Amino acid sequence: MIKHALSEASLPRGFRFAATACGLKKTGALDLAILSSDVPASAAAVFTQNLVVAAPVLISKEHLRASKGHMSAVVVNAGNANCATGAAGHAAALRTVAEAAKRLGCTPQELFVCSTGVIGVPLPLEKILRALPVIARHRRPSARSFAELSLAICTTDTRPKTAAVSFMMAGKRIHLVGCAKGAGMIHPNMATMLAFMVTDAIWGAGLPQFLRVAAADTFNKISIDGDTSTNDTFLLLANGASGLKPAGKDAGLLQHSILGMCSDLAQQILADGEGVTRVFKLLIRGAASDEEAMLAARTITTSNLVKTAIHGADPNWGRILAAAGRSGAKVDQTKATVRIGDVNVFESGAPRPFDRERIREIFSTPGLRIAVDLGVAKGKGEAWGTDLSEEYVRINADYTT
Amino acid sequence: MIKHALSEASLPRGFRFAATACGLKKTGALDLAILSSDVPASAAAVFTQNLVVAAPVLISKEHLRASKGHMSAVVVNAGNANCATGAAGHAAALRTVAEAAKRLGCTPQELFVCSTGVIGVPLPLEKILRALPVIARHRRPSARSFAELSLAICTTDTRPKTAAVSFMMAGKRIHLVGCAKGAGMIHPNMATMLAFMVTDAIWGAGLPQFLRVAAADTFNKISIDGDTSTNDTFLLLANGASGLKPAGKDAGLLQHSILGMCSDLAQQILADGEGVTRVFKLLIRGAASDEEAMLAARTITTSNLVKTAIHGADPNWGRILAAAGRSGAKVDQTKATVRIGDVNVFESGAPRPFDRERIREIFSTPGLRIAVDLGVAKGKGEAWGTDLSEEYVRINADYTT
Repeated sequence: MIKHALSEASLPRGFRFAATACGLKKTGALDLAILSSDVPASAAAVFTQNLVVAAPVLISKEHLRASKGHMSAVVVNAGNANCATGAAGHAAALRTVAEAAKRLGCTPQELFVCSTGVIGVPLPLEKILRALPVIARHRRPSARSFAELSLAICTTDTRPKTAAVSFMMAGKRIHLVGCAKGAGMIHPNMATMLAFMVTDAIWGAGLPQFLRVAAADTFNKISIDGDTSTNDTFLLLANGASGLKPAGKDAGLLQHSILGMCSDLAQQILADGEGVTRVFKLLIRGAASDEEAMLAARTITTSNLVKTAIHGADPNWGRILAAAGRSGAKVDQTKATVRIGDVNVFESGAPRPFDRERIREIFSTPGLRIAVDLGVAKGKGEAWGTDLSEEYVRINADYTT
Repeated sequence: MIKHALSEASLPRGFRFAATACGLKKTGALDLAILSSDVPASAAAVFTQNLVVAAPVLISKEHLRASKGHMSAVVVNAGNANCATGAAGHAAALRTVAEAAKRLGCTPQELFVCSTGVIGVPLPLEKILRALPVIARHRRPSARSFAELSLAICTTDTRPKTAAVSFMMAGKRIHLVGCAKGAGMIHPNMATMLAFMVTDAIWGAGLPQFLRVAAADTFNKISIDGDTSTNDTFLLLANGASGLKPAGKDAGLLQHSILGMCSDLAQQILADGEGVTRVFKLLIRGAASDEEAMLAARTITTSNLVKTAIHGADPNWGRILAAAGRSGAKVDQTKATVRIGDVNVFESGAPRPFDRERIREIFSTPGLRIAVDLGVAKGKGEAWGTDLSEEYVRINADYTT
């Protein structure tokens, strides 16, 4: 059962959090935070696949490799992505890590460093170095400080995004908590999706592989504008403070909990997307393969014409089929079907009369589902998308470098 | 020298045109037209690559093959794309062709048939069959009737798009005239880019190959929203009525003229794009190959974040580099350069201070050029793009199926 109200009881043991406003955000909001484990934790991370990569991503990757997956903390700032900032930006991230390691009493290699915000503007390093010692001292294992962390990572987000789960094992409790900001494909200047998850379970082998699957199944299936960012980072720390090492059915429960939290956070990101007024789930059936189904799903959910139609509550099967047709996936247009909610608007290659009143109802009810059968074979896939609104254009046009 | 004002003297000999309002457009505007050659002409065409293809495209392809590239006329309607209309739509297009062939005194296989407009709505065949005999009788070799044709093919276009060229050869004159509507990637419900070009030159072999190159170099390099349509058709008829068969330097001049007209019409389409307030040319240098340069160019010109930044007159090198980074093209971010007009805003991997006043000037002057050096090797490419405005969203969200 995923909870959104945080409490002391929901926090994994052995983690502490702190955040402050060091001046990176002009509004004076929280913009620098630390998440730390009291002991080195089993860690894994999934990073952006963009070839233009921010300095902190390069450094975090290197540290994860050097420490062989044993990490102690995350230092994160919002308001500046420290990307496309040249050698000076790389040096600034290394200085941040060195200073944080000193204050936290760990090696630099045990640290993740993450940045999110505007791309291509030099990182105001002095502000960070001044504030780090203070927050390092004030880390707390409290729901309040975790909530502060979840706010400090926000950029154009209109609300923080957190989720917590716990379950019993052998008479004791395992806890998981996570937070996220932005969306890989929505905040290109803000430039980041970040998601941090911590648990006090003991994790055996296979964490990196599992995290990749979890990301592919959740965060990688959402799209707001098709623009992947340069700073995306999703990481998990398992510090073992519960003393419990789930195996068999319990390991399944732990993985299921993490997947549920990822999915929940991904949905929160979508719903908070820039200018988003409507979220939809797209199901593809009848593709030549599961890969082709995902191709079609991604193309349809990122099509501006589909997205504007959905903004206008228009069951526009023509735009949906045209997007499928250019996706690279095979489509048999004489057998294709498009279903909006529970209404087939296009069936076996031809449009069908439908009840406009029913379509209006479907569009005005949360949980919009669109299903497309490509009419070729048995491949299937799914993705989540959003509408495209005037507000999205305003937000992204008015932002000035 | 490309001319936009049409005159009798600019028309190729041996072609006639006619248009009428048969009732497909609710406004009563021109929506059905014929373009015919007095003798079978050498013909070639380039069609949409979308796998969801309108019935008229399938039929035109088949006819071009059956007639071995000897075509006499084009029957075209706007207001209904006759796409995703099932077997009934296919039959309607065949009936249109049969009726037109009878009235024009040619075989059905000598006819192109084109449709543009809303997808997925049955074609009102009766309206077309009623009007065809009338316009078949009233075809004229006049600038006015060609202008009417250029209007009859419009859908959301705010103006007709025509171009004409002529040049002397052996003391006589060769004429070319063309018209276009929409943009393959902008009118998905209106669903079409159409471009028709006619000349009275005699064309030897190789017309299909040349037309493919011409399309790749012009129409295929523009993008408004990344959505390719189901009805795109670009065709050329060369009827030889001038009695002139250009060879050597003259053949080069003819090809150069056609390329110039294609480029001119493509620019007209871009400038008239839905909600477009700014058009830009994107040059890619330093790519691993020309293919990778085109990948990067297409991804940057179709990125909503780049497009909204350009709408906001923001020299947002971060969004440009992030789009290049996810394009699949190799990027060396330590060597990359981004140039807006004549100003390097990002150079050799780092942002550079720039004069904001100068940038404002560049954005407010037509002919915006953005150059990106990927810093890898010698590959280069170019594409044209447009901004993304609130108006684009309004147009496409308010359209209702």
